Amino acid sequence: MTESYRGLLDEEKVFKDPVHRYIHVRDKLIWALIGTKEFQRLRRVRQLGTSYVTFHGAEHTRFTHSLGVYEITRRMIEVFQGRPHWNEKDRQLALVSALLHDVGHGPFSHSFEKVFHSDHEAWTRAIILGDTEVNQVLTSIGPDFAKEVAEVIEKTSSNKLVTSMISSQIDADRMDYLQRDAYYIGVSYGHFDMERILRVMRPTEDQVVIKQSGMHAVEDYIMSRYQMYWQVYFHPVTRSAEVILSKIFQRAKFLYKEGYRFQQPPQHLFSFFEGKPTLTDYLKLDESIVLYYFQMWQEEDDEILKDLCHRFINRKLFKYVEINPNNQMADWARLRELFTQAGLDPDYYLVVDSSSDLPYDFYRPGEEEERVPIHLVKPNGKLRELSRESDLVESISGKKRTDHKLYYPSDWLASKENKVEKEEIRNLLFQER
Amino acid sequence: MTESYRGLLDEEKVFKDPVHRYIHVRDKLIWALIGTKEFQRLRRVRQLGTSYVTFHGAEHTRFTHSLGVYEITRRMIEVFQGRPHWNEKDRQLALVSALLHDVGHGPFSHSFEKVFHSDHEAWTRAIILGDTEVNQVLTSIGPDFAKEVAEVIEKTSSNKLVTSMISSQIDADRMDYLQRDAYYIGVSYGHFDMERILRVMRPTEDQVVIKQSGMHAVEDYIMSRYQMYWQVYFHPVTRSAEVILSKIFQRAKFLYKEGYRFQQPPQHLFSFFEGKPTLTDYLKLDESIVLYYFQMWQEEDDEILKDLCHRFINRKLFKYVEINPNNQMADWARLRELFTQAGLDPDYYLVVDSSSDLPYDFYRPGEEEERVPIHLVKPNGKLRELSRESDLVESISGKKRTDHKLYYPSDWLASKENKVEKEEIRNLLFQER
Amino acid sequence: MTESYRGLLDEEKVFKDPVHRYIHVRDKLIWALIGTKEFQRLRRVRQLGTSYVTFHGAEHTRFTHSLGVYEITRRMIEVFQGRPHWNEKDRQLALVSALLHDVGHGPFSHSFEKVFHSDHEAWTRAIILGDTEVNQVLTSIGPDFAKEVAEVIEKTSSNKLVTSMISSQIDADRMDYLQRDAYYIGVSYGHFDMERILRVMRPTEDQVVIKQSGMHAVEDYIMSRYQMYWQVYFHPVTRSAEVILSKIFQRAKFLYKEGYRFQQPPQHLFSFFEGKPTLTDYLKLDESIVLYYFQMWQEEDDEILKDLCHRFINRKLFKYVEINPNNQMADWARLRELFTQAGLDPDYYLVVDSSSDLPYDFYRPGEEEERVPIHLVKPNGKLRELSRESDLVESISGKKRTDHKLYYPSDWLASKENKVEKEEIRNLLFQER
Amino acid sequence: MTESYRGLLDEEKVFKDPVHRYIHVRDKLIWALIGTKEFQRLRRVRQLGTSYVTFHGAEHTRFTHSLGVYEITRRMIEVFQGRPHWNEKDRQLALVSALLHDVGHGPFSHSFEKVFHSDHEAWTRAIILGDTEVNQVLTSIGPDFAKEVAEVIEKTSSNKLVTSMISSQIDADRMDYLQRDAYYIGVSYGHFDMERILRVMRPTEDQVVIKQSGMHAVEDYIMSRYQMYWQVYFHPVTRSAEVILSKIFQRAKFLYKEGYRFQQPPQHLFSFFEGKPTLTDYLKLDESIVLYYFQMWQEEDDEILKDLCHRFINRKLFKYVEINPNNQMADWARLRELFTQAGLDPDYYLVVDSSSDLPYDFYRPGEEEERVPIHLVKPNGKLRELSRESDLVESISGKKRTDHKLYYPSDWLASKENKVEKEEIRNLLFQER
Repeated sequence: MTESYRGLLDEEKVFKDPVHRYIHVRDKLIWALIGTKEFQRLRRVRQLGTSYVTFHGAEHTRFTHSLGVYEITRRMIEVFQGRPHWNEKDRQLALVSALLHDVGHGPFSHSFEKVFHSDHEAWTRAIILGDTEVNQVLTSIGPDFAKEVAEVIEKTSSNKLVTSMISSQIDADRMDYLQRDAYYIGVSYGHFDMERILRVMRPTEDQVVIKQSGMHAVEDYIMSRYQMYWQVYFHPVTRSAEVILSKIFQRAKFLYKEGYRFQQPPQHLFSFFEGKPTLTDYLKLDESIVLYYFQMWQEEDDEILKDLCHRFINRKLFKYVEINPNNQMADWARLRELFTQAGLDPDYYLVVDSSSDLPYDFYRPGEEEERVPIHLVKPNGKLRELSRESDLVESISGKKRTDHKLYYPSDWLASKENKVEKEEIRNLLFQER
Repeated sequence: MTESYRGLLDEEKVFKDPVHRYIHVRDKLIWALIGTKEFQRLRRVRQLGTSYVTFHGAEHTRFTHSLGVYEITRRMIEVFQGRPHWNEKDRQLALVSALLHDVGHGPFSHSFEKVFHSDHEAWTRAIILGDTEVNQVLTSIGPDFAKEVAEVIEKTSSNKLVTSMISSQIDADRMDYLQRDAYYIGVSYGHFDMERILRVMRPTEDQVVIKQSGMHAVEDYIMSRYQMYWQVYFHPVTRSAEVILSKIFQRAKFLYKEGYRFQQPPQHLFSFFEGKPTLTDYLKLDESIVLYYFQMWQEEDDEILKDLCHRFINRKLFKYVEINPNNQMADWARLRELFTQAGLDPDYYLVVDSSSDLPYDFYRPGEEEERVPIHLVKPNGKLRELSRESDLVESISGKKRTDHKLYYPSDWLASKENKVEKEEIRNLLFQER
Repeated sequence: MTESYRGLLDEEKVFKDPVHRYIHVRDKLIWALIGTKEFQRLRRVRQLGTSYVTFHGAEHTRFTHSLGVYEITRRMIEVFQGRPHWNEKDRQLALVSALLHDVGHGPFSHSFEKVFHSDHEAWTRAIILGDTEVNQVLTSIGPDFAKEVAEVIEKTSSNKLVTSMISSQIDADRMDYLQRDAYYIGVSYGHFDMERILRVMRPTEDQVVIKQSGMHAVEDYIMSRYQMYWQVYFHPVTRSAEVILSKIFQRAKFLYKEGYRFQQPPQHLFSFFEGKPTLTDYLKLDESIVLYYFQMWQEEDDEILKDLCHRFINRKLFKYVEINPNNQMADWARLRELFTQAGLDPDYYLVVDSSSDLPYDFYRPGEEEERVPIHLVKPNGKLRELSRESDLVESISGKKRTDHKLYYPSDWLASKENKVEKEEIRNLLFQER
Repeated sequence: MTESYRGLLDEEKVFKDPVHRYIHVRDKLIWALIGTKEFQRLRRVRQLGTSYVTFHGAEHTRFTHSLGVYEITRRMIEVFQGRPHWNEKDRQLALVSALLHDVGHGPFSHSFEKVFHSDHEAWTRAIILGDTEVNQVLTSIGPDFAKEVAEVIEKTSSNKLVTSMISSQIDADRMDYLQRDAYYIGVSYGHFDMERILRVMRPTEDQVVIKQSGMHAVEDYIMSRYQMYWQVYFHPVTRSAEVILSKIFQRAKFLYKEGYRFQQPPQHLFSFFEGKPTLTDYLKLDESIVLYYFQMWQEEDDEILKDLCHRFINRKLFKYVEINPNNQMADWARLRELFTQAGLDPDYYLVVDSSSDLPYDFYRPGEEEERVPIHLVKPNGKLRELSRESDLVESISGKKRTDHKLYYPSDWLASKENKVEKEEIRNLLFQER
């Protein structure tokens, strides 16, 4: 591929999109990137992992989300054009970074990464800089272009303005996923007035800021985000599926390490079990591959692997109780004992899962997912951090909310064997708290 | 499973649904059926097959559609309750038939059935009557209930009213899929006023009829159907993916018959290649299984299988020209010769695909998909077939529209080898018609 | 007002609009025109006249519609910019013509014009060219500008392209009102994909044409139009209110001519009764003025005027039967006799109203509302009239549909007096047809 | 009218409604009430008073809102039927109270009531209990029924459950107007999931409560309310129109008291000027009457009345600056002096307007608009006040937010006369605060 992807297409291409109505592509570069096999692979990775077990509409993919982030960025640039601080030569950098920001995501990333100590951001970098179709297309623009894109996505770029378009408390990424996830699921929470927010966005040297007059639209966006987290992303049923998924990966890795002979050996996963996956290995993975193994493993000899896969495929999920991890450690130890006595391995069948969210945070130095806070620009040109202007945002800022749930197989608990232990288990699980 | 599923749940269950807002389940029977593994399997079969290559939102599954048809039927029954001709004891029969009407669908049904002479309606019957969780649940209601359900779905039931609720020119099935497909894709064509149509539906001995005052809402529905067919279901890019998919199945079957040694043998498909699949074989299939093989086969030795799978997975589709099959037979024979000379097997790389639709038909005896026509009931109680009352419907009734497209690999045609043949191929393909 | 309105505003102004989300104003000229008292007056004239008696949401005004037509034209121009045949210097001409195309509408135009032989198009011309704030603003742009605008609106301009943007079978006017009326009323019929239509519109020397690929979106628009006419614009209850309204105007004029002494003399209407209204007279009218008189006249001495006003204000409308004017002339004469005998003046209480619509017409030379037909432009650049390409449009083209209804006061008919005549009236009205 | 309005209509009537899709009427009683002239009068009173000058879509009337509140109540009852504490004989009481809760509203109530010390709640009572068509219809149901309805609307009824359906922090009234106002204006703020809220509402002896599982939907509703207040109801431009409107009423009353001779005497308002309006006087009023006078008064001799009417009719509104009434009293006194010196009466041309809102309040004993707080019912049946369960609501509870604006005529301030005073006025108005 020695072709160059500079310049514009003869005719604009459009994708029909339910969230943004149309996604418009004028640049050869963007069109070529969408056509690469690494980007097409995102069609086989769901945006919301296991949420589809709770919300049957949540089958949309990272492919659609990536196009959406690109489109929002494109519209943001239309607003920026001709304004101070906006440099038209950053246009392609912003568009490409938006399009590729999730290109390193793999199947069921959340659980997969936890078990295999994998990191989709590292894979994104690898895909952009490695021996891929994506890299070939990017390099046709200039020798350093791929590296510039990687730095924006990694938030190490000196171009802070473009970085903040993709990664901040109010960026193209979040504005797309909140609306898109709400749309496909059918909840009303994801509504906010993006058209208004885009109109009041202004470029500065360091970041995108919001005109004071748009404050209420931003408040609405923050509330939307808050509701989506607690109503959708942290839904307890989704987390149950996620728990089982993690335990399947964990069990398969354990069995592999133990030298277990799989009837259906997961050749795609060997290098992950060993902690030495190559980019080629990673790119072969997608959710149909993972689901293929899970289905086949319903007939494995190992009882745990077999049972967990059967649960995942046929949606026989765990139930849960709320717990307080601080004052229930004794119960927890006793429950593990009882599970073991009753013949069920608590490492796989008694699982604590915690979620937490900061609805908006203006200052969290050193935290893992540190995003630039939102600044309003007053009519006199001065900047003010959002929570100092908005009563609503101030009232919820920095309030971290966490919940802890203990997952267990209720069907097993209802069955007849090991009555004594189960009686005590039930007492411990269902006590007043 | 000796449990009985008669009666109502302690508390109504709801599913969030973007099309109908909520799907409501009161009956233990319905809840149990949704939980069976045969029904959960529909989560792994897309509603629109390969349409997602054209419309990236079209990832919704037959699971969601089946719930939708159930919900519409439930609302229809709310309107019917207490009216003449409606027998409340048919309620469960109607709801279950609605829920299960597509339970026999497999992965990429359209192409799969064509190549393997499989029939999802026969599989539906097999799932309902065979040794399945679905059958166990149904039998708990009564010994003949499963058979009654199967007959409604097969349109052989003596209960014509319930049959017409599920299968007619304006039934719960069509009303769900038109709206649902339009929603997930994001096109405006699927809009019609279902709430109005439901309100004007009336049961009669033989079928559901529509009050005269609802005629315009029905016209709108018919136009919606017409547009969805030509804009979405018969979209030429979707058909290109479908052509390649069929050719993959055809090639794999051919290779199997020839004794070819697959690096990744498709054990799930052997009994289909041999024409003797069991129900167990069929139920193991889903779209992740199929996509797993397609991905693996990108590394097969057979050049055709490998290339077609690569095309399907990475969306390197065929292009097309419109043809007139009546007067272009000579061209067609010559094109096949030229393809062969240039080294490409025309059986796989030069494919005619035809689509046709009747927007509304009042009388098509003996045709394959014969559905009951729509009747209006006048204020005086007399019935009139829709096209006799509606100028709009009359003007498009019985007008079959067909188009024919010839699909070919344009990338190959653009490459340098075999210049002479390709020159002539281009002349034949792109001549004025 | 010697100010000039050339150039752009310091900051863009926006109006929140439910149909187009935002209406954007950059030009000083447009902003100044919106602020004129002649344009503000459109806030006091409903877009749909008496439709609010049928559809309670239909309270929106010609002010909102005018802004909507302006906004669509503005978006059309965005698509046209830089394309052949589009002359950027026509931008203001098109925007202003769009904004002002209905500025001459008065209260309840339909009935008002019929009774007083008034013509809103003549008034539009008078407002644009006369001694008005509108004219002052227009003249600040150039001495001939007002005249150019008037000619576009009157369809006498040599600039056929701009004319067709405002007045053709698919223009900014119709695209706004179909969507807007549907939105405020809450019907689903008004949906079509305007964004798509705008994207496929192309300027030519003579008119706006549509790219072939947009044909289906245009079909959808034509169907939408068809449904809106028959479901909304010609709704029989609306026509009943319109009948009564006309009869009030007719009676007031008659009384005036007779020398009747009004308790509340309609000073605003005197010059209209005499057929010599000035522009000043006309601009003082709006719907609150008309409704003021109607309310006051509920206490007039004249029984007919009093009764009709009471009916209009309190929504005690006439009922109707369908008639066939060709073969019921004898009945008609007899009914008039009977009404007279029973003491009710048939000129006011027995009224035939007819509606007719051509859903799409490609060739209607010499007809009153002759609009340019829709042309598609093929990939090879050739133009084809829409109905030659679209089966759907062809099937309904040129089919004029007319209905005739006879309106009468059913409450009077149900009351006890004059039993003999009423018996015969009922027989004639409700006979089988 | 000796007819009885007990029982059901032969056929259900429906109103098309954009917010609730359809409004369903089965009861003769409801149908008869809608047909009364007092209820039809609500068609001539806008729901949002002067908001239409800011949001051009806000032309919807109290008629549509009243139907909407009725419809929500009807749906609430569908959820309540068969549940403990719900007494089916309260059905008509609830429906009628919902329908009639605003029947006493007059033209531009907010300003009208302030100037004339009128009270729409007293008029509602008068309409229900007085000599009206409404009262006749109600009395046909039973001699005490009208009184029961009046007490529910006045919140003095012993039936606290029905009262809370119409008047509480989350009642049919608010749920309708938030959605309806948002719809007609076209803002996104009004979205919340009413269908969900209705499903989780439960009757108790004292009030409607919400199932714990519906808490997030209620949070969303409270945020929606918060945004609508600050974005729409307290919009500074609307308040400018309201200021002018009040001043017109104030001036007309003043002139009347002074014995001024009106060219167009406002006979409809005399009894209001004198503080002794009868019900008949009140029912003759509506917004077309008021607008008629305002238009006529543009030609009065009194300069102030004439100017204010001209401003209102042609939307030449006042501008504003934010003020702090606590520390600007000296400025305020000086500004009044300067206005007087420059020839403009500060009583009419320098007006402070304040708005304040409590987004949600759980305890406000003795306050004017004391509504029942929201209670959640936990799975164990215990009630908890919302703000004790919801972090979000807790964080904004009881936080009263007030703003103060000073309105003045900026066009006058920009004109040339009285340069000295105006210079000082500008300095005082536009100083840094």
